[in-house]
Amino acid sequence: MSDERVATLAGRLADRLGDACVVQSGDIPERFLEEPRGRFARRPDLLARPGSTGDTAAVIRQCRAAGMPVVARGGGTGLVGGASVAAPSIAHRGGGVLLSLDRMDRIVSVDADAAAITLEAGATLAAAADAAAEYGMAVPLSLASGGSATIGGIVATNAGGNTTIRHGNARRMVLGLEAVLADGRVLDLMSTLRKDNAGYALGQLLIGSEGTLGIITRAVLALVAQSRQQAAAWCAVDSPRAALRLLRRVRSGLGETLTAFELISRRALEFSLVHLPGSRDPLAEPSPWYVLVEAGSAIAGDWLEGALLGVLEAAAEAGTVENAALAANRAQAAEFWRLREAISPAQKPFGASVKHDISIPTESIPHFIDEACIRLEQRLPGIRPCIFGHAGDGNLHFNLTRPEAMSDEAFMALEPELNRIVFDLVVRSRGSIAAEHGIGQLRIAELARRTDPVKLDVLRRIKHALDPDNLLNPGKVIVPDAKT
Amino acid sequence: MSDERVATLAGRLADRLGDACVVQSGDIPERFLEEPRGRFARRPDLLARPGSTGDTAAVIRQCRAAGMPVVARGGGTGLVGGASVAAPSIAHRGGGVLLSLDRMDRIVSVDADAAAITLEAGATLAAAADAAAEYGMAVPLSLASGGSATIGGIVATNAGGNTTIRHGNARRMVLGLEAVLADGRVLDLMSTLRKDNAGYALGQLLIGSEGTLGIITRAVLALVAQSRQQAAAWCAVDSPRAALRLLRRVRSGLGETLTAFELISRRALEFSLVHLPGSRDPLAEPSPWYVLVEAGSAIAGDWLEGALLGVLEAAAEAGTVENAALAANRAQAAEFWRLREAISPAQKPFGASVKHDISIPTESIPHFIDEACIRLEQRLPGIRPCIFGHAGDGNLHFNLTRPEAMSDEAFMALEPELNRIVFDLVVRSRGSIAAEHGIGQLRIAELARRTDPVKLDVLRRIKHALDPDNLLNPGKVIVPDAKT
Repeated sequence: MSDERVATLAGRLADRLGDACVVQSGDIPERFLEEPRGRFARRPDLLARPGSTGDTAAVIRQCRAAGMPVVARGGGTGLVGGASVAAPSIAHRGGGVLLSLDRMDRIVSVDADAAAITLEAGATLAAAADAAAEYGMAVPLSLASGGSATIGGIVATNAGGNTTIRHGNARRMVLGLEAVLADGRVLDLMSTLRKDNAGYALGQLLIGSEGTLGIITRAVLALVAQSRQQAAAWCAVDSPRAALRLLRRVRSGLGETLTAFELISRRALEFSLVHLPGSRDPLAEPSPWYVLVEAGSAIAGDWLEGALLGVLEAAAEAGTVENAALAANRAQAAEFWRLREAISPAQKPFGASVKHDISIPTESIPHFIDEACIRLEQRLPGIRPCIFGHAGDGNLHFNLTRPEAMSDEAFMALEPELNRIVFDLVVRSRGSIAAEHGIGQLRIAELARRTDPVKLDVLRRIKHALDPDNLLNPGKVIVPDAKT
Repeated sequence: MSDERVATLAGRLADRLGDACVVQSGDIPERFLEEPRGRFARRPDLLARPGSTGDTAAVIRQCRAAGMPVVARGGGTGLVGGASVAAPSIAHRGGGVLLSLDRMDRIVSVDADAAAITLEAGATLAAAADAAAEYGMAVPLSLASGGSATIGGIVATNAGGNTTIRHGNARRMVLGLEAVLADGRVLDLMSTLRKDNAGYALGQLLIGSEGTLGIITRAVLALVAQSRQQAAAWCAVDSPRAALRLLRRVRSGLGETLTAFELISRRALEFSLVHLPGSRDPLAEPSPWYVLVEAGSAIAGDWLEGALLGVLEAAAEAGTVENAALAANRAQAAEFWRLREAISPAQKPFGASVKHDISIPTESIPHFIDEACIRLEQRLPGIRPCIFGHAGDGNLHFNLTRPEAMSDEAFMALEPELNRIVFDLVVRSRGSIAAEHGIGQLRIAELARRTDPVKLDVLRRIKHALDPDNLLNPGKVIVPDAKT
């Protein structure tokens, strides 16, 4: 877009938001551009920081009139480039306004009768959790990035995390939301109701649409009772197949209290141990695989640890678990989680990584891991798969670190080929190429290429019905068809 | 549609399905027409009974070519006329083919690793539950009509029921589905994955769309571990306000084990006691209101009854609960549920009823009940509100039985006026006019009248994007705009 048209738009936005809240491209502070993968940071034409839903709607209307794309940004913790302006070649149009919701960070209310919290989009998950805790309740979502990730981004990306096996992704806890549509109108679906079958589930459609169908400005989340008992164990298993046998046991034996079931490969643990000063292996002997199991209950008592112990003893007798460390207290459980959460950053010092956030039908996980590792090693001897993730949900972070003796550049040049090996197997297993991180820019081409044509057509129809001019977050999720 | 065109279509459908599975209007057996409210049974032009997804797609394509609407029917237990052909005046077009999924009733598989069951649309909830039980698992949905209600209908209407407070509506447990679209293409979203953020949540959009966006032919449901402990209590409370205080206590004290929280008015109980031979009041003294609380856990042990007792004792001390009967065993808990489930049929002998399936923001329930009862009594002295429902979800079955001395006909003539009194208050409270039964024919005009114009416009755009010719279930859920 021409400098003159950008300047005109900036003036109009400043009339509404004030000069301080509209920033020209070159002056945008780094904190609005940073993104964890370090590969999507493009400078937008303008930064706009609305203070209210009405402001947001006004920004959208002005951008629409100017033909300027709008990219919403929350905490900037997304891993697929969803909150950065896409390259014109991907977006099929140039430039864009980065709409940061950071000023809209109020906790609007906690409703103890409805067990619900109402928030503006820019409030962080941690702030929501603190507000809920004051009422003895909890937000049933746990992300490593919870201190920065915002509710708007969490809802827009249908975030998952560590406790999805029990509480589901973000979409399960959203009772209501408000969004500004591509035409600047406000879609008010705010509600604390747990049951509402009056018309199609428009809220569910917006959840996970990554800012391509509307900009989420407020949301209502369901809360749960805080835990009064917790139990956790770090278990050694000899294979992913044994991990699945353990999954069946803990599902049956811990039932509704099962909160996490994380699979961790030996290499992933080793990376963490190097990365974290003062950390130590929870078990004396190394094991090729581990499972971190956690359970929690709101009911006061002392039976939960016994239930977990009972499951582990039976699993050990059956040869499913080789060894296990039961957390003696919350501090020890936190230490297990510290090892788990450190895996992703811990990869960095070992060189470049190609990362995949996939899910695989549970029963096919062992075969998938075997097959993928064989093919990757064939293609690139010495490649270091660093496998971990929420295996209880079938969700693996299937990350590949470069061979020790290879340069980062040479390795990253192979990314398309490595992706193809992994995604071919994912699709053959009827898995998902985007389990919890979303599509964003990173996977938009893969989605278009690998999605069933009927589904792809319906996705495009929906996008066209709500954003016919491809104004909202172009270059993310969906490549519009030739018509649009 | 002319007899000749219907005969031509019947011939084409019979070529695909066989003569026995295509039935002319006059010959359609009663069991395909029955519906519980006895007010929506219109005879379709044809009945078609496909045996497979391919058959269903072929039927849709033929109907599309003939310009003939298609109405899907499952178990016929819906309460809003969603599975009957609508009157031409409501549907904006005449006639239709009733597409019964009764032949597609297979339990395809139970997947113990994924904790999931795959079913054809015509399988009943009871059959699904039996199949899951063989693997020690349960379908987390409980409906009074579970023996007849089918998975297709349950998913298409986003059914709720007795355990929604714990497990959510049907949409929460659907992992995957398959649907035939209005153009006869098959949208394959079948999956056992618990995490899949690859594109918009098209499955969620179809769930609850009542056959107006696609015909659901198969589904995958998540299963849970069976309960090994249960506890239930029938509690006397002096008001809905006290019931809410109890709700807070049980949510905190029973946490993840809380399975049901049903509010029951004295009149509702009295109707049931008259209706059920050999039944008796669970408590010696009458109370104006009751709450039926149930909890369950998959963990073996004997602590759950103690947890419930602890909550009730504290509630009694605080003056929240007047009296309570703890179920001594499963038979006694079943007897509590028999009283609860009988309320709806028990109303019939007392004369005509006008029924409302609403939800109200939890904190507003007491005020809503007070206000609505005052206004209704003012309008029609002697009217008998028979109030009960899933109050833990804010969902009330706000049913009104005619005054003792009035005729059914005179009372039903007042239905629009009574609806207006109730729905005006529902909307003012930011509640829903359709909590779990759906919109169907019964509430289509109300939805159009009472929905925020932006939301209504988006609903219409979605309908138009997926079914531009209004071929699927016309006259249900959404009145298309003038263009369509």
